[in-house]
Amino acid sequence: MITSSANPAIKLIRKLADRKERQHTGLFYIEGLRIVGEAAQKQWDIDQLVIAPELLTSLFGQQLVTDVTSAGGNVLEVSADVFRSLSTKDGPQGIAAIVRQRWTSLEDVHLSDGDVWIALDSVQDPGNLGTILRTSDAAGCKGVILLDQSTDPFDPGAIRASMGAIFDQPLVKTTWPMFANWKKREEAAVIGTSDKAQQDYHRYRYPQGLVVLMGSERQGLQEHHYALCDAVVSIPMRGASDSLNLAVATALVVYEIVNQRLDEAAHSQ
Amino acid sequence: MITSSANPAIKLIRKLADRKERQHTGLFYIEGLRIVGEAAQKQWDIDQLVIAPELLTSLFGQQLVTDVTSAGGNVLEVSADVFRSLSTKDGPQGIAAIVRQRWTSLEDVHLSDGDVWIALDSVQDPGNLGTILRTSDAAGCKGVILLDQSTDPFDPGAIRASMGAIFDQPLVKTTWPMFANWKKREEAAVIGTSDKAQQDYHRYRYPQGLVVLMGSERQGLQEHHYALCDAVVSIPMRGASDSLNLAVATALVVYEIVNQRLDEAAHSQ
Repeated sequence: MITSSANPAIKLIRKLADRKERQHTGLFYIEGLRIVGEAAQKQWDIDQLVIAPELLTSLFGQQLVTDVTSAGGNVLEVSADVFRSLSTKDGPQGIAAIVRQRWTSLEDVHLSDGDVWIALDSVQDPGNLGTILRTSDAAGCKGVILLDQSTDPFDPGAIRASMGAIFDQPLVKTTWPMFANWKKREEAAVIGTSDKAQQDYHRYRYPQGLVVLMGSERQGLQEHHYALCDAVVSIPMRGASDSLNLAVATALVVYEIVNQRLDEAAHSQ
Repeated sequence: MITSSANPAIKLIRKLADRKERQHTGLFYIEGLRIVGEAAQKQWDIDQLVIAPELLTSLFGQQLVTDVTSAGGNVLEVSADVFRSLSTKDGPQGIAAIVRQRWTSLEDVHLSDGDVWIALDSVQDPGNLGTILRTSDAAGCKGVILLDQSTDPFDPGAIRASMGAIFDQPLVKTTWPMFANWKKREEAAVIGTSDKAQQDYHRYRYPQGLVVLMGSERQGLQEHHYALCDAVVSIPMRGASDSLNLAVATALVVYEIVNQRLDEAAHSQ
């Protein structure tokens, strides 16, 4: 059992709070019964389970350790003090995990009829990204494409806000030129959202397979984005504000698509 | 000019980071050109402008100081070091303000035809509350009613997320029994949202004047809430998640109301 915070294994975990280290290693760190349970249940690659036996009183947690061990997984035992020194929670449950990141290649994304993907240009706020993952899952979207200088979906704030959807939603990371090429090759419809657009997001009829493209929190869609879009829609603003939170705007557009398809299905019956 | 962080005026500002002190004094602290400008422009009662002349290079900022001073306002000059010690920003602009909170009494809320209010039960996250204020403003809602143990809309995180809507949206703070009495007296329609409801939020036809009632992040709507609601609607969940972020769910419902009214207006033409 590790009792010193100076142990190299503990130092690595601490370093994973840093985006560069996550990128370099391809790993991320999660803490808590529920989220570790989800990662295991959804068969993400657990590089190492980290437990503090003294704190891990939950039967579910102990079963999780048995499962991971019997599947050949690696378990690191640490003292309660060391676990607490790594913890960001008020009442640490004594279980955490180092998990391998999972990315989908843009080459493997093909739009079938009815598929909706969300593409985010340079999203900055981890909470927004996590909330969009949660919404994307709830609305039945196929995944999220991160363009250019995006925040990290494996940032603790993004993971927290995703409420588990991080383990369900395929994630693609690419550049704008690669995305533009992909769009042409796949003949994918790309629908942008901007407060400057004329087309109301609720009146527009969305094509069957499409990518919803959202600009960044600060800048919104830019000229080169517009040029690629098949249509750009806007959400009506009736107050003093000239924009909505990015996660809110994304949700309004994808749920409008959900509603239109439910309406079409109801009318065709 | 104040050059010591130990000065009582500076200590008061630091204390305003604490909710209890905000409640006790009825004040809150904001920092930055844009937000102080908005508070002044929207005629909120600025108790004291706090400036660091060395940092305040913006002409707009200097004009603001002149305006507040000539309106009889109180200006506190502090050194750049003291200002920085109070600042939560990377590049402090040398202007901040202590502002008086503004609350609307539930007694003064009367629903006219077409009015939409948002009521939040025990909202916990300041970012969610701020985002809901921003959405409420954008969707043309009349204001936000905070029920029971709600987080503070004058929390810095709520103010930041509101993007200025804190100065536009009337805020009511009340208890559940008072709200229930008000509903009866005003004969107000209250529409709840819950993932357990049968009625799809997009199929339901919303009454003309209404309150959209949202449960807390952790608990959602509870039994006693249901009992008061005229209808409870749900948002379809098509993935692994069983719920949406509170600010997202609120936005979907209020924009559904906006869309239905736009559709009705279009059909009646």
